Amino acid sequence: MDHQIFEELELLLKENRFNSLRSELIELNEVDIADFITQLDKDQTLLVFRILPKTLAAEVFAYLDTDLQQHIVISITDRELTSLVDELYIDDTVDFLEEVPANIVRRVMAVTDRETRETINKFLKYEENSAGSIMTSEMVEIHSEYTVEQAITQIRRTGVDKETVYTCYCIDKQRHLVGTVGLRDIIFASPDMLIEEIMESEDAIVSVSTSDDQEYVADLARKYDLLSIPVVDSENRLVGIVTIDDIVDIIEEENTEDFEKMALLAPSEDTYLKTPVITLAKNRIVWLMVLMISATFTGMIIEGFESKLALIAGLTASIPMLMDTGGNSGNQVSTLIIRGLALGEISLSDYFKVLWKELRVALICGVSLASVNFIRMYVMGLITGSHSEPQQYMIYLVVCLAMLAAVIVAKLIGCSLPMLAKRLKLDPALMAGPMITTIVDAMALLIYFGLATLLLTF
Amino acid sequence: MDHQIFEELELLLKENRFNSLRSELIELNEVDIADFITQLDKDQTLLVFRILPKTLAAEVFAYLDTDLQQHIVISITDRELTSLVDELYIDDTVDFLEEVPANIVRRVMAVTDRETRETINKFLKYEENSAGSIMTSEMVEIHSEYTVEQAITQIRRTGVDKETVYTCYCIDKQRHLVGTVGLRDIIFASPDMLIEEIMESEDAIVSVSTSDDQEYVADLARKYDLLSIPVVDSENRLVGIVTIDDIVDIIEEENTEDFEKMALLAPSEDTYLKTPVITLAKNRIVWLMVLMISATFTGMIIEGFESKLALIAGLTASIPMLMDTGGNSGNQVSTLIIRGLALGEISLSDYFKVLWKELRVALICGVSLASVNFIRMYVMGLITGSHSEPQQYMIYLVVCLAMLAAVIVAKLIGCSLPMLAKRLKLDPALMAGPMITTIVDAMALLIYFGLATLLLTF
Repeated sequence: MDHQIFEELELLLKENRFNSLRSELIELNEVDIADFITQLDKDQTLLVFRILPKTLAAEVFAYLDTDLQQHIVISITDRELTSLVDELYIDDTVDFLEEVPANIVRRVMAVTDRETRETINKFLKYEENSAGSIMTSEMVEIHSEYTVEQAITQIRRTGVDKETVYTCYCIDKQRHLVGTVGLRDIIFASPDMLIEEIMESEDAIVSVSTSDDQEYVADLARKYDLLSIPVVDSENRLVGIVTIDDIVDIIEEENTEDFEKMALLAPSEDTYLKTPVITLAKNRIVWLMVLMISATFTGMIIEGFESKLALIAGLTASIPMLMDTGGNSGNQVSTLIIRGLALGEISLSDYFKVLWKELRVALICGVSLASVNFIRMYVMGLITGSHSEPQQYMIYLVVCLAMLAAVIVAKLIGCSLPMLAKRLKLDPALMAGPMITTIVDAMALLIYFGLATLLLTF
Repeated sequence: MDHQIFEELELLLKENRFNSLRSELIELNEVDIADFITQLDKDQTLLVFRILPKTLAAEVFAYLDTDLQQHIVISITDRELTSLVDELYIDDTVDFLEEVPANIVRRVMAVTDRETRETINKFLKYEENSAGSIMTSEMVEIHSEYTVEQAITQIRRTGVDKETVYTCYCIDKQRHLVGTVGLRDIIFASPDMLIEEIMESEDAIVSVSTSDDQEYVADLARKYDLLSIPVVDSENRLVGIVTIDDIVDIIEEENTEDFEKMALLAPSEDTYLKTPVITLAKNRIVWLMVLMISATFTGMIIEGFESKLALIAGLTASIPMLMDTGGNSGNQVSTLIIRGLALGEISLSDYFKVLWKELRVALICGVSLASVNFIRMYVMGLITGSHSEPQQYMIYLVVCLAMLAAVIVAKLIGCSLPMLAKRLKLDPALMAGPMITTIVDAMALLIYFGLATLLLTF
């Protein structure tokens, strides 16, 4: 959006030239109008919102954030509210009502006609993040025994208020979903053909049930490249659709959730800047606490070996390197596996394939890292002249072998834990970097100290 | 997809009942047919592919992976190939040609008519991941001075081969993009209205240029809830469109790239299972190496303090806990900031807001963690009877203060580095967990040893 247009609009607003403002606004995209309204102060918000034609006003309303929506709903008259709810799509109304206090829900319900109210109530009862909670009931339904001509008439008559008309849903007399047909196929068909002749019939249509998780809905839409996906009840009767714009939002939401889980953050409801400090702290503290306590085990391993560490110079200095490299190696593979599982590119039956692959990758990475590390230690030894110290080369060997072992262990744990989580029906995303690091740290040190005890004389 | 249907199809194939197989297949969704073909052996693949009616065959082809596509293209006759390329959408053909060896490209080009060949050549020249490289040229164009009736005739006449007909693009005589109009608005308008009366005109339409990055294209489509987005050249002439199915794929691709970058993996071209071991190792080794070397600085910090560490029991044991907690704290905030920047929820101008927020979050988290840690050490002290050792309480104080400081430093670095990267036009995703951990580790230990030197007597 051009910043210049915003300034022009603000000038018109400041000079109270509402007619010009209105005619400028209706030329704009509703998303940009929402952006414009959002950065005004609250009195102006209402003023500009009221200038808009009612259909456009409802479109803009759907793109405002909850605070602003609430402000508008509280401030407008009952009559304006009735017309707003009337113009809004059911799913947008439900989204809004899910976020606001009960008194505002009551106010909205009071001005809504009975039928819409019943639909809204039904939708509000679906579990959060289920297909039922994100669907809209505004789809085009046509009977499968209609002709193309009848269907077009039906679409023209009922389609104007629907969220999409591009996929029409074919039902039988009991409202069972029996097919889908693209508006495109209707347009290109001859008028006297029957809808059931041109529709995609049962085997080819993809539908979800009201209780299915939104992630599953998004996965199907992505896999089958659908513009909308029908939602049916337990008896295969059509109750709603989920449209692609909502699916795109779900995909981003689910990705954000994965990012958060992988950093061991409790999922947030709101954007970062809007989340209060205390909620941010609460979302983070539990896992930090758990991992802090776990890290004391690593500490105990060091403590148990401390008397020996002091005897040979240079052993302690390699601890951070072994821990970090182990953690990073594990993090890399767990990220790939978590992502592969989420996108359906890896399934549980691939476990041994993955393990075998990671073993080979670990060998290549481990040997390279150990070699570079050997060179580094050797060069440092030349500079500091520590080669003359007793068993110096043996120390190098211990560090390099420990490095190789740490990388192998890290890769194997990094690929196994996410798949184990999936197997136990937990979210694989929890088995990401921080969790892997904590486990690999302890293992790497145990191996390191074990090798030192075995190969060095104290 | 029902597994049972797959088994039925396999049975029909085994018994050579091709007519039944064909009539079963054409009832299915093209994505499921592609799934079915993918798990057959190579000879059967071709057999089943050839059974399909040619339009359906092209649809299925677009969902096969490159290996299988290549196998089919090599095996079919020139005539079959001509008809396949004819039925495929340009963007699917280009996607395929970008992946295969030159001799296959030549074979495809040889059987293609001149006009298509020129378009393909033009598309192949656009930079990878640019709007030009992902667009298709199969969109419906209508002149803005047409009537609705003329437009409908035009759509019926030219629309059948187009990738989408649901958004039509309005052009003037010089092919400049002057508006867009939904098929829905055309259907509901009266036949004698002019397209320019019902189209969204310039201020409201969103377009991209051929050189724009695909991530930007996806961001716009997501923001404006578009089903397709027009691509124009430097003189605002319409050259193609990007459709929502490709945009959904781009969104997942960009997310995968972010996940990979955050784990410091070089981005992969292929799915995990298909990537060879050596490529996987190569994608991981560079950053592992860099971070391994960096971790030696942390080691040097420990080494410098080693003589003192040996003097007081219990100091070394807290090192992993401080390092891990610091790393995890930094990882949490950097993930939130990277995600917020990617989704446009946080902008660079919010820096001080973010910093102030994180400072407060860090105080809450740091004080809680330090307190729990104090209790843990106190209880452990009771059990082991170490309270009687000299300056034991002072050691607890040093560890807890270091913990608080480490969390504060980690949170501030964790929010600053991604934003700094963005400021420097680098990818913020690089400033994630592993990178933050390496930096925070060193800082945490410096603070720890600093406090120990200040408060303890050795």
